[in-house]
Amino acid sequence: MSNIPQSAKLGQHVVIEENVNIGKNVVIGHHTTILAGTKIGDHVTIGSQCVLGIQPGGSARMRKTSKRDMELVIEEGSRIGHVTSIYAGTKLGKNVFVGDHASIRENVSVEEESVVGRASIVELNTKIGKGCTIQTLAYVTGDTTLEDDVFIGPCVSMSNDKYMGAQAFSLNGPYIKQGAKIGNNASLLPGITIGQNTIIGAGAVVTKDMEDNITAAGIPARKIK
Amino acid sequence: MSNIPQSAKLGQHVVIEENVNIGKNVVIGHHTTILAGTKIGDHVTIGSQCVLGIQPGGSARMRKTSKRDMELVIEEGSRIGHVTSIYAGTKLGKNVFVGDHASIRENVSVEEESVVGRASIVELNTKIGKGCTIQTLAYVTGDTTLEDDVFIGPCVSMSNDKYMGAQAFSLNGPYIKQGAKIGNNASLLPGITIGQNTIIGAGAVVTKDMEDNITAAGIPARKIK
Amino acid sequence: MSNIPQSAKLGQHVVIEENVNIGKNVVIGHHTTILAGTKIGDHVTIGSQCVLGIQPGGSARMRKTSKRDMELVIEEGSRIGHVTSIYAGTKLGKNVFVGDHASIRENVSVEEESVVGRASIVELNTKIGKGCTIQTLAYVTGDTTLEDDVFIGPCVSMSNDKYMGAQAFSLNGPYIKQGAKIGNNASLLPGITIGQNTIIGAGAVVTKDMEDNITAAGIPARKIK
Repeated sequence: MSNIPQSAKLGQHVVIEENVNIGKNVVIGHHTTILAGTKIGDHVTIGSQCVLGIQPGGSARMRKTSKRDMELVIEEGSRIGHVTSIYAGTKLGKNVFVGDHASIRENVSVEEESVVGRASIVELNTKIGKGCTIQTLAYVTGDTTLEDDVFIGPCVSMSNDKYMGAQAFSLNGPYIKQGAKIGNNASLLPGITIGQNTIIGAGAVVTKDMEDNITAAGIPARKIK
Repeated sequence: MSNIPQSAKLGQHVVIEENVNIGKNVVIGHHTTILAGTKIGDHVTIGSQCVLGIQPGGSARMRKTSKRDMELVIEEGSRIGHVTSIYAGTKLGKNVFVGDHASIRENVSVEEESVVGRASIVELNTKIGKGCTIQTLAYVTGDTTLEDDVFIGPCVSMSNDKYMGAQAFSLNGPYIKQGAKIGNNASLLPGITIGQNTIIGAGAVVTKDMEDNITAAGIPARKIK
Repeated sequence: MSNIPQSAKLGQHVVIEENVNIGKNVVIGHHTTILAGTKIGDHVTIGSQCVLGIQPGGSARMRKTSKRDMELVIEEGSRIGHVTSIYAGTKLGKNVFVGDHASIRENVSVEEESVVGRASIVELNTKIGKGCTIQTLAYVTGDTTLEDDVFIGPCVSMSNDKYMGAQAFSLNGPYIKQGAKIGNNASLLPGITIGQNTIIGAGAVVTKDMEDNITAAGIPARKIK
């Protein structure tokens, strides 16, 4: 049984599976699917054509997460755009904004007031702090950490696999410290750390750790200030 | 009340809200949602799983557009792909083509015969002239102008915020003059102008204005011809 | 008439048009549309909100494929993610994995055990061999060949039009030989060949052919090993 209070405003053809819990004053757009095990807080708004609460699967060649029957938790006041997909095992804090066409995988936490931009992708096992902005079409790879107040520009690319599939998995995304800002279309390599308040220029390729409070740019990225 | 003429071919589970006006010989695919205040011209084709006419919202941290009850206008002969989202306050001219998975925000004008490619994103307050081509996965940021016959290659990235969220909004996208061509995966910085018929090489990072009729490439982009 | 065996598990509001053939033990998610002429093999899993079997159309300014009534064939054991779109005239081999939000166009073949990643795009007339991995948000342009075991990193960009729309069509995508690996956010220009087992660094711009068994990086990409 699912809990759908009277205050919920549901669009047409909304599908709500079993074991879904919906808070007060929730709005859900047309044709949206809420899969089993999803917990939606008060005053959450969800667009049309979304799929929320997907249980991880994947192919035999992809990593499997062991747990089953995981939950997607969306805390109060968050707004989820249209045509989005979000997996179970993930938690979105209060007042998070997820843009249209975005996708967020399992075992991700997004803390309060952060923005996951339009058509951006956040892969599995990633932590996103408070007040972060991930801009349009940015790619946050798996096993990545963003501390609070990080800015990821549009079309930023990250990777977490230094052997590009050639060796057994030892995946490690970037670690981006508080207040760092990554310019649009920059590329971050696996396992690198970006220091606190450091700025990376547009189009830079970051191949090694960057210290705190610097500005770096170029290919490979070097300190310019 | 909405106006849906007999000549309209609607797929299954199509949702058409109030105050929608549909012209002659319009085709709409399965599961597509047409929101209130959308005006669709004659001979327009719309794919499946689309959401058209979205009223702008956004989070407290994003700019709000002041107007309410805006309209989406799609002029005659335009073709809208599958899984697209288009906001209200926007106008698509005659014979515009929008690729599958593309998203176009509010206060955008796309003039006749232009192509907004597959999975490309066009942000708010942007003007796109006649006969432009925006290729697959390209990102056209907010507050951008494309004059007529501009070519934006695949995966081109733009930004409009030189302070990356650190200062109050003074956003300014690129201004791209008639006939300019931007190579694939190039990055354009906020507020720069690309001259008439100028060509920017693939992967270039354009950090300052480029004059008319040149070819530029590299990081930062420099005139090579 | 379509063939839907008793063993099929269909979600709510699934649309299955005429002339669709569905194998044994197929799972189809909510709100998914299967268009006329789609052949789905045994044990195939398809997510929610997909559109499969799209007949090519396009605008007057885009290439038309001549054939009509083409079929989409998905062979046994393949898994198709949520919010995907796949065209008719395309064949996916056994145990292929297509990530959420991905789009695959017409006249494409993807051989067995290959992965077409989340939000990646594969354009028309492209051949993808066995055991390839195309990562998240990568763009595989039209008229491209990937031999077996090729790795395309996240956000890789390709182009197939060296005149950027300025001349009559003579389109030619990259040719990527067996076992080659392309780093994240690299850009490949039209018609270039990447040699067998060659590695291209993250963010590189490849402007000419690369021989077998080398590592290349930079803008333009040069052999470094």
